[in-house]
Amino acid sequence: MEKFMTIGERIHCISPTIREALQNRDPEPILKRAKEQIEAGADYLDVNIGPAEKDGEELMEWVVKLIQSEFDNVPLALDTSNKKAIEAGLKVYNSENGKAIINSADAGSRMDLFELAAKYDAKIIALCAKNGIPRDNDERLAYCTEMLEKAMELGMEPTDILFDPLFLVIKGMQDKQTEVLEAIKAITDMGLKTTGGLSNVSNGAPKDVRPILDRAFLAMAMQCGLSSAILNPCDKELMDMIKTCDVIKGNILYADSYLEL
Amino acid sequence: MEKFMTIGERIHCISPTIREALQNRDPEPILKRAKEQIEAGADYLDVNIGPAEKDGEELMEWVVKLIQSEFDNVPLALDTSNKKAIEAGLKVYNSENGKAIINSADAGSRMDLFELAAKYDAKIIALCAKNGIPRDNDERLAYCTEMLEKAMELGMEPTDILFDPLFLVIKGMQDKQTEVLEAIKAITDMGLKTTGGLSNVSNGAPKDVRPILDRAFLAMAMQCGLSSAILNPCDKELMDMIKTCDVIKGNILYADSYLEL
Repeated sequence: MEKFMTIGERIHCISPTIREALQNRDPEPILKRAKEQIEAGADYLDVNIGPAEKDGEELMEWVVKLIQSEFDNVPLALDTSNKKAIEAGLKVYNSENGKAIINSADAGSRMDLFELAAKYDAKIIALCAKNGIPRDNDERLAYCTEMLEKAMELGMEPTDILFDPLFLVIKGMQDKQTEVLEAIKAITDMGLKTTGGLSNVSNGAPKDVRPILDRAFLAMAMQCGLSSAILNPCDKELMDMIKTCDVIKGNILYADSYLEL
Repeated sequence: MEKFMTIGERIHCISPTIREALQNRDPEPILKRAKEQIEAGADYLDVNIGPAEKDGEELMEWVVKLIQSEFDNVPLALDTSNKKAIEAGLKVYNSENGKAIINSADAGSRMDLFELAAKYDAKIIALCAKNGIPRDNDERLAYCTEMLEKAMELGMEPTDILFDPLFLVIKGMQDKQTEVLEAIKAITDMGLKTTGGLSNVSNGAPKDVRPILDRAFLAMAMQCGLSSAILNPCDKELMDMIKTCDVIKGNILYADSYLEL
C-alpha cells in the first residue's frame, strides 16, 4: 500500500492567532505555522478560513497564493463552508506538487462540491453523512456509494475521493469507536481511500490523555486501512507512530534509522 | 470483549541476575522482579527457568511456591522445555486467582503438553507451528485446528488455549507482519483466544526504537483481536497503550482518569 498521507490541521481559524492573521492579511503567523508543519513532515496543509461569508473568495485566493509561493507549491486542502471561496482558491492553486483537496463534501447539501472537484481536477474529502452523524455503518456505506457514483458520473478517479466515516469523540461516544473502525475497513476493502479528523477522537479528554488516545486510535485505524488523516504533524510521537505503522504494514522499508528519515 | 491480559516476561533465565538467583535458590532477585511487575499491572507472571535439564522439577516447584506464597497466589505461566518440570510446577500450583498457563505447546513434539493441561485444568499457550516458522497462514491455521481438536478431545475449554501465531521480528521479516496480524484476526474470528511474545517484534532494532515498534504492533494486533501478550509490564507507555486500546474497543469504560486506574 501507499505510505500514509498526513494533512496538517494547524492553519485553522479556530486559533485566535490565525483568525487575526487572516482578518488582517498578516502573512507572518500563517507562514510560521506552515513552515513548522512542513518541517514536521506534513504532506498537505489544511487551510481553514472558517465560514468567511463576506470576503471568502478574496481571502482564500490570498492565503493559497501566500503559502504556495513561499513553500514551493506545497499541496493544500481548502477548508471552508463557502463554496465560492473554495472555487476562488482552486482557480489560483498550483497543483505541481499535488492536487488540491476540497474539504469537504457530504451526501447532502455539499454534494455539489464534487462538480468543483471534477472541474478543477482536485481531490475531495467526502463525509459519509447527510444530516448530522450517521446512525450506523449501513448509512455510512450508503452515503459512500452515493458519493462514489456522483464522482464517477463526473469522470473523477475514485482514488481522488477521501472518504471520511466521521471520527467520533470517545468521551461520550465510546461505544461507536468499533463501528468507525469497521467503516474504515469496509471502505478500504472496496479499494477506496479514507481520511478523518483525528483530534475529534480525543476531544474533551484531559490534555495529558489526548495524545495517547489519538495515537492508539490512529494505529488501530491504520490496521483497518486508513490512508490519511487531518492531524497535528507537530506531535512528534504521533508522527513516529504513523511511520512505525507504515513500517509494520510494509508501506515503507524498515531501517534502524527509519524514524529519522 | 474481555479486557486484554498481560503476562509479565521479566522472570526469565536469559537475565544473568535471574539465572544466578535460580541456580542459587536466592529468593530476593526473583521476588523483586515479581513485585515490580505486579505493581506495574501484570495479570500473569511468566516464569522461564530455561531448559533446566538437571534439576528442573525441583527448581520449578521451588520458584512456583516462592512467588505464589509471597504474592497472594498470583497466577503464573510455567515456561520451560522440560515437561517434567512443568508437571512438577503444576502439582504445587495454587489456582485460586487464575489457572496456571503452560508455556508452551506446539503442533509437533510438544503436542503432549495438552494432556498435562487437561489433567491439571491449566491454560496452555499453543504455538501455531510444528517445525520452525510456519510458511503461511494456511499452515498456521492448520496447526491451530489440529491443536484445538486435540484439546477438545481431552475435554478442555477452547478458551483455555492461547493460540500464538508466532510474532516475527520486523528487522529481517518485515514482509511477514501483515500475515501475522491477519492470523490473529482469523483465529479471533473463530472465537478463540490469542497471545504472542511481543518483544520478538522489535528484536535486534536499536534500543530507542524498540518500544515504539512494540507499541504500534500491539495496537494493530489488538485491533485484530489479540487477547493477551507476553511483554514487559514495566514499560509504562506500553501498558498505557494497552489500556487505551481497551478503551477504544469498549473493553473498559472511559473515564478521564482511566490511565490511573
